[in-house]
Amino acid sequence: MSTPAIHPVILCGGSGTRLWPRSRAIKPKPFLPLVGDSTLFEATVARCASEAGFAPPIVVTGKAHLEHVEAQLGNASGAQVIVEPMARNTAAAIALAALRLGEEDVMLVCPSDHHIADSAAFQSAARKAAQLARQGWLVAFGIAATAPETGFGYLQRGEAIGDLGFKVARFVEKPDLARARQFLADGGYAWNGGIFAFRVGTFLAELGTHRPAILAQARAAAAAGREEGQRFHPRAAEFAAIESESVDYAVMENTAHAAMVPAAMGWSDIGNWDALLEARARDDAGNSVTGTADLVQCRNVLVESDGPRVSVIGMEDVIVVVDGNEVLVTTRAGAQLVGKLPGAVNQ
Amino acid sequence: MSTPAIHPVILCGGSGTRLWPRSRAIKPKPFLPLVGDSTLFEATVARCASEAGFAPPIVVTGKAHLEHVEAQLGNASGAQVIVEPMARNTAAAIALAALRLGEEDVMLVCPSDHHIADSAAFQSAARKAAQLARQGWLVAFGIAATAPETGFGYLQRGEAIGDLGFKVARFVEKPDLARARQFLADGGYAWNGGIFAFRVGTFLAELGTHRPAILAQARAAAAAGREEGQRFHPRAAEFAAIESESVDYAVMENTAHAAMVPAAMGWSDIGNWDALLEARARDDAGNSVTGTADLVQCRNVLVESDGPRVSVIGMEDVIVVVDGNEVLVTTRAGAQLVGKLPGAVNQ
Repeated sequence: MSTPAIHPVILCGGSGTRLWPRSRAIKPKPFLPLVGDSTLFEATVARCASEAGFAPPIVVTGKAHLEHVEAQLGNASGAQVIVEPMARNTAAAIALAALRLGEEDVMLVCPSDHHIADSAAFQSAARKAAQLARQGWLVAFGIAATAPETGFGYLQRGEAIGDLGFKVARFVEKPDLARARQFLADGGYAWNGGIFAFRVGTFLAELGTHRPAILAQARAAAAAGREEGQRFHPRAAEFAAIESESVDYAVMENTAHAAMVPAAMGWSDIGNWDALLEARARDDAGNSVTGTADLVQCRNVLVESDGPRVSVIGMEDVIVVVDGNEVLVTTRAGAQLVGKLPGAVNQ
Repeated sequence: MSTPAIHPVILCGGSGTRLWPRSRAIKPKPFLPLVGDSTLFEATVARCASEAGFAPPIVVTGKAHLEHVEAQLGNASGAQVIVEPMARNTAAAIALAALRLGEEDVMLVCPSDHHIADSAAFQSAARKAAQLARQGWLVAFGIAATAPETGFGYLQRGEAIGDLGFKVARFVEKPDLARARQFLADGGYAWNGGIFAFRVGTFLAELGTHRPAILAQARAAAAAGREEGQRFHPRAAEFAAIESESVDYAVMENTAHAAMVPAAMGWSDIGNWDALLEARARDDAGNSVTGTADLVQCRNVLVESDGPRVSVIGMEDVIVVVDGNEVLVTTRAGAQLVGKLPGAVNQ
C-alpha cells in the first residue's frame, strides 16, 4: 500500500502593507510575481504537486481575494476553496479546513506568501513532517535560521524523535536583537515559519482540549455552510463568533505533542522590500530590476516599476518602487517602516 | 533728461537635459516654475520691469519654444520676439537683437534660465553696467563666487573703472577643482554668468572687428527678415550660414574693452537638480517638496512630482523627480550626470 497523500492547506490572507505600493489591499503579496515569473501563491500550489505525493489543495481565503485565488489556481483538479466571510486568523482557518477532511488524513498548512527556493527540500521536509504527524505529533517546520531576525518566532529544538525530527522544547516569541543573536550562535533554535503538519483527528482533538469554543464555533460554521462548486462558504453568523487567534497561540504553544522538522530550503517570508531584494536574482553589482530602468553607479538597488522608466544615479542599498499613483524610495533599513507610511495605512 | 532705458535682450534656448525629466526638450527649464510660482522666464521678464528703468524686452528664441514664450510674456507691452529658424549660439542671437535697436541704445543680455534671488541687486548692477557700456565698455556681470565651481567660466578682476566696476584682466575657461579653489581663495575672480551690457554700436563694431562674417550674415538674415506682429523672423537661408559661436568666444575674449560689474544677487544657473535644491525654500530638515510626498527620516531631500505621491524613507542628500513616464532618483553628487542618462539624451 502506498503512503497516503498529504493534504495541502494553503492560507491566503494578507493586508498588503509591507510591500506597498506594489502590494495593495486589493491585490496583496501572494498574488504578485515577486520572485520569478510565478506569483507566490502559484509557486505554493506548484510545490505541493500530486507527483510529489500531495492531494489536491484546500485554499482558505477571503471574499476579497477569491477572484485572484481562482484565477491563479488554474486547473488544479480537485482543489477546494474555503471562502471565509471575514478574517479570523489561522486557528479558525485551519479548523475549517480540517473539518473538510477525514480524521486520518494528514494536512500540511502552508502560508501562500512565502518564497521557498528549494522545492525538493520542502517536499522532503513535508514527508518527514507527515510521518511524525501520523505518529500523533503536531509538527512545525523549523526553518534554518541564517540571521538574527527579530521579526520571527523561534522554536527551540528538544530531543530527537528517531531520525525524522525533534520535540519542540519551547516556543519563543519574537526576540530582541541580543537574544536573536544568542539563538543564532546557539544553533539549537529555528525560525517558526508557520508551516505545520497535522493528522486531522489529532489537531481537532488538541484544538478541542485547548480552545473548545473555537472548535465548537468552527464546527457550527461548517455545519451551516454552503457548497458552491469547488467553493465552500462557512456561514457568516457562526464564523463571525470565532475568536481571532493564531494556531501558534491556540494550539502549538499548549500541546504536549509539538514537534519540529528542520528545513533548510531557501525560505523567505518576503516580509519587506529588503527581504525581496535578498530573494531576487541580481546582477554583478547586486542590483535587481523589474520593469525599465537605467542604473548608473548603483549597488544593491532594487527597482520595481509597473510602467515608467526609473533612472537611478549613485545609490547604494536603496529600493525604488513605482506602482500606479505611488512612488516609494527607501533605504534597505527603512524598508521595515513601509507598512506605516500613510499610503500603506490608508488604502 | 532722464537716463535712457536699458533694453533687455532675453535669450531663450536650452535643450532640457540637465533638469530632465522635469525639463524636456519640448518644455525646457526657462518655462517651468522651478523656484517659487513664476517660471524662470517670467521671473527674468519681471526683473527687467519698466519701473526699474528698462525698455520692453527683446526675446530671442526658437520656433520650438515660441508658444511658451508668448504665453508667458503676458501683456509686456512693446515686447519683441526674434524667432530663430535654428540655434546658432549667443553671438548670432545677440547680433540679431542689436540690429533691432539703435546705435546709442544700451542692451542688457540676460539668459532666461537663471534664478536671481535679489532683484534689487540685479537692477543696481544693471544700472552700473549700463553706465560703463555707455562709456564704451563691453560689460559682463561678475557673479560673486560662493563655491569652487568647475562648471562656470571665471572673470579675473583687473583695475577699477571709477566706482562702477573693473576691467576684466582675463577670461578663464571652466577650471579644474584645484584651480577653482585657488580662484575662490584669491577673491579676485568672479563667475561669468552670461549677463552682459553693451552699447549697441560698440557691440556691433567689436563683432565686426573680431567676427566680420558673423556680423555680415546676421545683417543679411535681418535685412531679408519678415515682421509678423511682435515677431521678427530672420530669413533661414542667411541665418543658417552664421557660424555657431558664443559671444564669449566671438567678442568678449577678444575685445580690449571688456569690463565687469560685481554682482552679489543670490544667483544660480540652476544647472542641475542639486543647484535647484540649493535655490529652493526648504523645511527645517532641509527638504523641499513640490507635489505630494511623505518624508520619513529624511534630510536634504528634494521631491518634485507632477502627480503621483512620493514616499521616501531614510534618505539624505537625494533627489526624486516624477514626471509623466519617467522617474529619476539620484544622489546630489550624481545630479551632474543626469544630462547623460539615456532618457535625457534620447528625447
